[in-house]
Amino acid sequence: MLTLEKIKHAQEVLKEAIYKTDVIRADKPDCGCELYLKAENLQKTGSFKLRGAYYKISQLSPEEKARGVVACSAGNHAQGVALAALRSGIPAVICLPEGAPISKVEATRSYGAEICLVPGVYDDAYNRALQLQKEHGYTFIHPFDDEDVIAGQGTIGLEILSQIPDLDAIVVPVGGGGLVSGVAFAVKQVNPAIKVYGVQAEGAPSMFNSLKDGHIEALPSVSTVADGIAVKQPGERTYCYCRDFADEIVTVNDDEIATAILTLMEKQKIVAEGAGATPLAAVLAGKLPAIRGKRVCCLISGGNIDVTILSRVIQRGLLTSGRQCTLNIELLDKPGQLVAVSKIIAACGANVTGVHHEHAHAGSDVIGCFLRIDMETKDFEHIANIKAELGKAGFRIC
Amino acid sequence: MLTLEKIKHAQEVLKEAIYKTDVIRADKPDCGCELYLKAENLQKTGSFKLRGAYYKISQLSPEEKARGVVACSAGNHAQGVALAALRSGIPAVICLPEGAPISKVEATRSYGAEICLVPGVYDDAYNRALQLQKEHGYTFIHPFDDEDVIAGQGTIGLEILSQIPDLDAIVVPVGGGGLVSGVAFAVKQVNPAIKVYGVQAEGAPSMFNSLKDGHIEALPSVSTVADGIAVKQPGERTYCYCRDFADEIVTVNDDEIATAILTLMEKQKIVAEGAGATPLAAVLAGKLPAIRGKRVCCLISGGNIDVTILSRVIQRGLLTSGRQCTLNIELLDKPGQLVAVSKIIAACGANVTGVHHEHAHAGSDVIGCFLRIDMETKDFEHIANIKAELGKAGFRIC
Repeated sequence: MLTLEKIKHAQEVLKEAIYKTDVIRADKPDCGCELYLKAENLQKTGSFKLRGAYYKISQLSPEEKARGVVACSAGNHAQGVALAALRSGIPAVICLPEGAPISKVEATRSYGAEICLVPGVYDDAYNRALQLQKEHGYTFIHPFDDEDVIAGQGTIGLEILSQIPDLDAIVVPVGGGGLVSGVAFAVKQVNPAIKVYGVQAEGAPSMFNSLKDGHIEALPSVSTVADGIAVKQPGERTYCYCRDFADEIVTVNDDEIATAILTLMEKQKIVAEGAGATPLAAVLAGKLPAIRGKRVCCLISGGNIDVTILSRVIQRGLLTSGRQCTLNIELLDKPGQLVAVSKIIAACGANVTGVHHEHAHAGSDVIGCFLRIDMETKDFEHIANIKAELGKAGFRIC
Repeated sequence: MLTLEKIKHAQEVLKEAIYKTDVIRADKPDCGCELYLKAENLQKTGSFKLRGAYYKISQLSPEEKARGVVACSAGNHAQGVALAALRSGIPAVICLPEGAPISKVEATRSYGAEICLVPGVYDDAYNRALQLQKEHGYTFIHPFDDEDVIAGQGTIGLEILSQIPDLDAIVVPVGGGGLVSGVAFAVKQVNPAIKVYGVQAEGAPSMFNSLKDGHIEALPSVSTVADGIAVKQPGERTYCYCRDFADEIVTVNDDEIATAILTLMEKQKIVAEGAGATPLAAVLAGKLPAIRGKRVCCLISGGNIDVTILSRVIQRGLLTSGRQCTLNIELLDKPGQLVAVSKIIAACGANVTGVHHEHAHAGSDVIGCFLRIDMETKDFEHIANIKAELGKAGFRIC
């Protein structure tokens, strides 16, 4: 059973294996509260998952340790278990679906774990892990629905309380629910007045739906940029802890997550993965009105985002925050039109980054042509201003 | 004159204005030494420049403070002076060249400084700043060639010594030389055995050249992705401190810098600008053979990189580290060729991310066609392996 003593014990055990990650003051984003970031993306393996995995392994019997452990994951849990096993001197087998990104496979392998690439999807890899468990007597390390794993993750709650005095609220990403269960339980034991909010992706709202309907529900599918919390069904234990100790669960969409990732890179100079950025996404999108004027900590749970995805997220984040904009303008096909448009845009203070000019197409005047301009802008007000100036000059924006 | 006492005094003064930034253990990059990162990119304003500016302002007389300060910069110094003035309650004017990126202008404005956008390039903005100094009696805050500014930057040296016991070497970016002067002076006063290495961009080697030739030299132009250290000429003071206290200056090219930026994002989950990544670039590229097996700290001086540039750096870094690869393959224009190529690539374990297929062009067989495949790969060995397998199957790689 989960107790505060157990989480404190986990904290002692973990001292030898983890970093006490920094809390960063975020004084830049304009979010109406005093905001801190617990940087678990700077944790070893790039996420908090090492905590639960290491504590779980530490609690195994000598016989269990000798036989080794098995886990199934294409993400942070894989690396957490691999490093935890390495540090504990025990063998680990990690089952991953064959299509898992090369970077994640290589990272897991770099911690010395045996990699088992399973044809098919996650569920196939999961079944293979259970099969290996039976065949070899490995201990299966569940990514979230396990008291020891939850206790390990709960240590972050105690750390945050020791790092930020007079805290009002903590905002935590929610996938299977292991992290929020541990943090909410720990924090409420110490000070029930501190709010603990959970955030799920709109494309994977399994805990959100389950709590709303009062029983555990499974989603047929999940789809979100926050792959670390794309979980179809909460655990039985995590469902109960979340119901009893978390104050509220809210959801954010992929655009809100992309904006938060971009904000963390630009303003705080840290790299968060989709899941890790969901707390800030909820704060920036105003999903938690109760935190206005309060002292709030967002738990940045991890930073393992594929850099090619990061490139796309940057583009998307610039668009959805009004920092980049593409205008399609109909022109008369005569000299001087491009000059006129360029002058207006320059006078408004936008940077043009791309120009595409083409002749009449269906729907436009036969003597007309079509100008697409990409530009860097300040915000949506700036874009509206540019459009208004172009309109005044007689240009039609399609 | 610079003394250890002055730097210690700066440390006292700065306590109220700056963060004592974290030192991060970098256990992932395979660089043959025990590597630490001093994360000044997580400093307020996203760079160390606040330190020198704030200390400089603190040493002004009440009359000077009342008149205010002026600075010229399109980068970190602008934000450092702006926030330092804001925190000191004095007026600041920052001259920037008109073409400065919107993000930097907005960031500087957000700290309450008066922005003076000057038509032309940096030198024009600089002349305008000197003119304002004369007209209004402002104090001009030099970005590097000033004892107080150097003392402020030197506080990072003392901080690093207090954070990492038994350190062997510190690696520092070098532009005008303010940072390396302060750090080298401070460190050598405390422990002359600790090596201090400076790193410049190959496209802006002003201090490197000047020290090599034994006198201050000006470059006609500079060009590097590390805009924060793109300085044409060292200062008189910084030249002397650098000559007397730094152990060696080395240079890195833009590809090496891009790889370092990518490594910091992927492995350490932090965002560094080009200048801030140069120390790691030098370490990873083997430019400092003397540090092998030693305990080394790279000073990550700043994180203010334009996100659109970051996107391009990611692409470049993936290419130059063998993580992304484009192959041009000549095919016979008959069915089944694409299948054959795809099968070989899949069997080698690469992820195809783009395919471009086109018919004969000058130089290729008239019945031939041309296949361009973009793919994610593990490293250069992996790419060589794929090429060899394609070659064995009779495909010609152009």
